[in-house]
Amino acid sequence: MANLQRQIFRAFQKQFWQRSSLLESPPAIACFNGKLRFSSSERPKTGILMLNMGGPENLDEVHDFLLNLFLDKDLIQLPAQDRLAPLIAKRRTPKIQEQYHEIGGGSPIKKWTHLQGQGMVEILDRISPETAPHKHYIGFRYVNPLTEDALEQMEKDGVRRGIAFSQYPQYSCSTTGSSMNAIYKHYHKRGVVSQIAWSSIDRWPTHSALIKTHAQHIREELAKFPESVRDDVVILFSAHSLPQRSQDRGDPYTTEVAATVMAVMEELGQTHSYRLVWQSKVGPLKWLEPQTDQAIKALAERGQKNILLVPIAFTSDHIETLYELDLEYSKELGEKVGANIRRSGAPNGNPIFIEGLAQLVKSHLDSGLSCSAQNRLRCPNCTNVTCGRAKEFFKHQQRYITKSSEAKASSKTAEENAERVSGTV
Amino acid sequence: MANLQRQIFRAFQKQFWQRSSLLESPPAIACFNGKLRFSSSERPKTGILMLNMGGPENLDEVHDFLLNLFLDKDLIQLPAQDRLAPLIAKRRTPKIQEQYHEIGGGSPIKKWTHLQGQGMVEILDRISPETAPHKHYIGFRYVNPLTEDALEQMEKDGVRRGIAFSQYPQYSCSTTGSSMNAIYKHYHKRGVVSQIAWSSIDRWPTHSALIKTHAQHIREELAKFPESVRDDVVILFSAHSLPQRSQDRGDPYTTEVAATVMAVMEELGQTHSYRLVWQSKVGPLKWLEPQTDQAIKALAERGQKNILLVPIAFTSDHIETLYELDLEYSKELGEKVGANIRRSGAPNGNPIFIEGLAQLVKSHLDSGLSCSAQNRLRCPNCTNVTCGRAKEFFKHQQRYITKSSEAKASSKTAEENAERVSGTV
Repeated sequence: MANLQRQIFRAFQKQFWQRSSLLESPPAIACFNGKLRFSSSERPKTGILMLNMGGPENLDEVHDFLLNLFLDKDLIQLPAQDRLAPLIAKRRTPKIQEQYHEIGGGSPIKKWTHLQGQGMVEILDRISPETAPHKHYIGFRYVNPLTEDALEQMEKDGVRRGIAFSQYPQYSCSTTGSSMNAIYKHYHKRGVVSQIAWSSIDRWPTHSALIKTHAQHIREELAKFPESVRDDVVILFSAHSLPQRSQDRGDPYTTEVAATVMAVMEELGQTHSYRLVWQSKVGPLKWLEPQTDQAIKALAERGQKNILLVPIAFTSDHIETLYELDLEYSKELGEKVGANIRRSGAPNGNPIFIEGLAQLVKSHLDSGLSCSAQNRLRCPNCTNVTCGRAKEFFKHQQRYITKSSEAKASSKTAEENAERVSGTV
Repeated sequence: MANLQRQIFRAFQKQFWQRSSLLESPPAIACFNGKLRFSSSERPKTGILMLNMGGPENLDEVHDFLLNLFLDKDLIQLPAQDRLAPLIAKRRTPKIQEQYHEIGGGSPIKKWTHLQGQGMVEILDRISPETAPHKHYIGFRYVNPLTEDALEQMEKDGVRRGIAFSQYPQYSCSTTGSSMNAIYKHYHKRGVVSQIAWSSIDRWPTHSALIKTHAQHIREELAKFPESVRDDVVILFSAHSLPQRSQDRGDPYTTEVAATVMAVMEELGQTHSYRLVWQSKVGPLKWLEPQTDQAIKALAERGQKNILLVPIAFTSDHIETLYELDLEYSKELGEKVGANIRRSGAPNGNPIFIEGLAQLVKSHLDSGLSCSAQNRLRCPNCTNVTCGRAKEFFKHQQRYITKSSEAKASSKTAEENAERVSGTV
């Protein structure tokens, strides 16, 4: 029986690796060498829902991705949004299709998330047998697999303990907040009582594996600069921007991104000059500054010709790294301003990072907390009522989560479940 | 002889303690119990210049303090500044005098800085005998003792190794930058060759002693909330605000303050919800948001009635803590919105903090660096040419600083000195 399980598991693994033809390096999967505890066909006890915005896998998906994105009121607020969003999506589709065409025809985010999730649950099965079997699910906001479908799949699979694991290390109301709101809204609409005791990993801006991964990638990339200029390279940590008014409302994103930046610089020993800059602004409103491209131009004009870009708020490659940072800034802008611009790798398949994801989930399970203390507080100037309800949803789950969570989770009665859902909506 | 030295030193100590009548707790001065190595009359080898903006010691000093402040183009940029600054200073003097009157008639910043400096150099004499005797100097920007006078005193005392030690843990171009520019400008104008090999401690936002001190003060203050609400207290880290355009230029202040906030929350075990908010806005321009008072109001309106304010960017009490946070926000605003608002202590005389200052200086001396790598880089959108020159001044000092700095510093020739000054201006 054990042999059969192993064969099935290896066949699944092989298929996965074949699908992941673009992978740079394999994750550290200790199960290959250790004892295989659980087969993929066994009912998962703990389901880990990896939340992200997602990206179109091919050019045909670009329109719907943009439409869903511009319709999301947690991400962006437009006048007459339901009518304006389709117009904007339609108008922008050809340009964005061209950008995805330039980076190989689609976003690699699903592939990387699968790889990271697969590696993570295999390590978890080993280091946290009491909560095994673990299964990872992907919940994207704007493309398949959509968060709502993943939630239903988890219910169907009979998961008892669910972890909403944001793949944005730094929390913003417009990213992680939007995903958490989607989970709350799904259960609010659903009506049918959920069997899952939920908790959230809603932020992890200074998790040691994240910091070590970025530091390693930065060191590797610094080594590619000529030795004569290496010490003078300026590191620009580039994060996805936000409208200024989000920061002004008290969105914790800028604080958390800054914390990641400082932790990475400390890991590196504060060896280089650096700044935190912001990319990917859209529309006419004021967004966070300095903008990445403006900073590159200004530095180059003052003679800083060696620049390293670090995608500090992404855990895998997106169009923002492969197109914007690599093609638009490093190549085109770099040539224009006469600067040598390189970009350090996103975490992607780094084994340190994948091991870190597993350790993070294990610590979270061990903590017995349904969410971070920080997640309980709405931004001081918050105007989004759904945020408050989603926060209540996760806070309320605390009664079903204990340090030995599965025992409690599996003892829920129908009455308790009914109370849970009614109490949170 | 040794006995005489000890008597002189103790007499000086006694006089100092008598002057410092407002001290809450004495610093950890190991020299009291250990071997006394150096008398205060010995020529100091290492001079540590403690830089800060300062504050009026009495009501008569308020006008000149405000005048110097509004004349400082590194801090604030006004149209026709040389003519407008005296008008603004004159107009604001009565109001600010009233505020100082309310907190006891003057700013305690000089007293605290003296206490911190005295404690620091006594520890340094013990832990870094090779760079002893150490002497601390105070260099304020807007009141006596002014930075320029302190520099001349250091030259007169025959100091060979000078450390420009910013007492702002987080660097801003308008605070630490302004002080560093003042040092550069003084030597630029001076003409006479300096005998001092200079270096700077220009930022220390996550230094462990700073973090532990804030965490201790927060825990102490949390303990004063009723137990029933203690876990629900919202921590508002309140830092002095900046004009939004400073952040937009790439001023590292917001990044570094955020790093301090996160480090403190990690030290506390992420036990509470929190936000970083900004106080002390002046004038009509947009400054950083959310503002402290607006955040208090908004939180109280949504039922968050227990709030702890933390002065995260001050190392000692100022009018911003004693008047603004304590009287305006905790008392008056707290009563108005029906909230229980407390404020955790500034580092002031905390022995952990004072020991940390000494350890920080020792690490800096051991590093052999003339400034941080970060200090070498002007902000991407910097418009202040003096900043670049001041950065060059400290960078250029590297040739006179080695890990065994004093040997090199004391071997300088007149030629080298002449080259130094001409090369930096």
